[in-house]
Amino acid sequence: MDIREYLKQKRLQIDAALEKALPPETEYPASLYKAMRYSVFAGGKRLRPILATAAYEALGGKDDTIIPYACALEMIHTYSLIHDDLPAMDDDDYRRGKPTSHRVFGEALAILAGDALLTEAFGLMTRQEVVDGLDGKIVVRVINEVSRAAGVQGMLGGQVVDVESEGEEVDFTTLQWIHLHKTGALIIASVRMGGWLGGAGEKEMTALTTYGEGIGLAFQITDDVLDVEGDKEDLGKKVGVDQERGKATYPAFIGLEQSKAKARELIGEGLKALEIFDPKADPLRGIARFILERRS
Amino acid sequence: MDIREYLKQKRLQIDAALEKALPPETEYPASLYKAMRYSVFAGGKRLRPILATAAYEALGGKDDTIIPYACALEMIHTYSLIHDDLPAMDDDDYRRGKPTSHRVFGEALAILAGDALLTEAFGLMTRQEVVDGLDGKIVVRVINEVSRAAGVQGMLGGQVVDVESEGEEVDFTTLQWIHLHKTGALIIASVRMGGWLGGAGEKEMTALTTYGEGIGLAFQITDDVLDVEGDKEDLGKKVGVDQERGKATYPAFIGLEQSKAKARELIGEGLKALEIFDPKADPLRGIARFILERRS
Repeated sequence: MDIREYLKQKRLQIDAALEKALPPETEYPASLYKAMRYSVFAGGKRLRPILATAAYEALGGKDDTIIPYACALEMIHTYSLIHDDLPAMDDDDYRRGKPTSHRVFGEALAILAGDALLTEAFGLMTRQEVVDGLDGKIVVRVINEVSRAAGVQGMLGGQVVDVESEGEEVDFTTLQWIHLHKTGALIIASVRMGGWLGGAGEKEMTALTTYGEGIGLAFQITDDVLDVEGDKEDLGKKVGVDQERGKATYPAFIGLEQSKAKARELIGEGLKALEIFDPKADPLRGIARFILERRS
Repeated sequence: MDIREYLKQKRLQIDAALEKALPPETEYPASLYKAMRYSVFAGGKRLRPILATAAYEALGGKDDTIIPYACALEMIHTYSLIHDDLPAMDDDDYRRGKPTSHRVFGEALAILAGDALLTEAFGLMTRQEVVDGLDGKIVVRVINEVSRAAGVQGMLGGQVVDVESEGEEVDFTTLQWIHLHKTGALIIASVRMGGWLGGAGEKEMTALTTYGEGIGLAFQITDDVLDVEGDKEDLGKKVGVDQERGKATYPAFIGLEQSKAKARELIGEGLKALEIFDPKADPLRGIARFILERRS
């Protein structure tokens, strides 16, 4: 299979679904809807929704059941980026080559647009037409999975430690803790979401979790690596930012080559965990390999 | 029944449940848990959780099923206060006589503590031990109710218009729109939550909604009134703030006496809607009357 083509097709499908799921800019108060849409459609890779979809397909899922849930993941991911970029946090002016939300809409609306994307993600996952025909208990499971991953023992905990570590000496254990929580947790939850909705058994769930852990950390390591040797044009952002800020990264601790080797090893572990699945898991396999090769 | 005693007992029960529901301050990262707890235990009246509980009881509910859901309402209410107080929004230094979150923990942690309370509210409502024995479809309904009330067509929409109206000329229609969305929506959802979990039929749900609409707006009007003629000591905050800021209020539009008359009328409508219920709805009736008499 051509993973680049697969990723593109899925991205378009997710984009179309997000377009429908988000309130139109014409509704009142329009500024809020504009701010929400601005960040959601700022050129994301849709990695988390695509992972959820690919995991669902690996279990034989063929219909669009997963799509609104996949969109909810992207809304939560986007909210986290908007808040991370705020002056009180990373104080970033640009993301993916575009001015950040608070630069365009002001701080108040950026905070509220983030809050809104988080809240509406849960609204979307429980909409009447979305849950219709689904087992309520499974929906509840999925929501719990997502809220735990986005919460204090997941993404938010990671963000707190990351913010508090800025300008501090951070040891390697703390760096790994930040990665696992800030980025890893939601990626793992994305894969597991596909598992829950696809009717995975315990064995499949364990395999999907191992896969999610492996690619989640590998994704973050390649992010660190790209900040060192990536191309500004490909990335749509400045490189060398981590070092400039004295931010702890994998290359800073174990060097560039060792970091790449670690990413390869993690991807290998992820692929190994997928051995229990048939070719329907090929998209998951392709995504794992793609993470190693990505340039942006 | 002695409504003051009822409110006190319920407040203690909710406080104890919140104490158990929130992660202990000793966990990592402790600063986040401290910030979450600081605002949750800053002396709230627990109006929303108590309304949910009283509605549940009005339908004959006797067990503690409602309690975690009631706590989730308070967590969402608290998150909204933390974010409202931020320098980019109302820029408040004090709330209920205590320094606001960002004054104590800094802006970054205040934003994240708010995010965390919102996220963990959904985590709490879907926890294994909380949903055990409940109908999944009802849990999904409750989550949808709460996320819509807290979302863009509820509290967040109201907050956006409120923020954008500061320093602007606001007409009476807009003021009512802000009240209905910013405060009303979550109060209505609190009452309806008790309805869903208590197994309300269509007729009861309509009555509870009318009751919620009436007391929600009455609550906001009495808030405006107290800002004019309330006592600083009772309220734990400065009075006359709305006028100082040129904020649109009910008294500013229709005068103090007319505002009080409107609040009485709304409470009357709320009480009338409750006529289909037996004495088990007395706490709901008592709360409605209490809103008219409150001094803080």
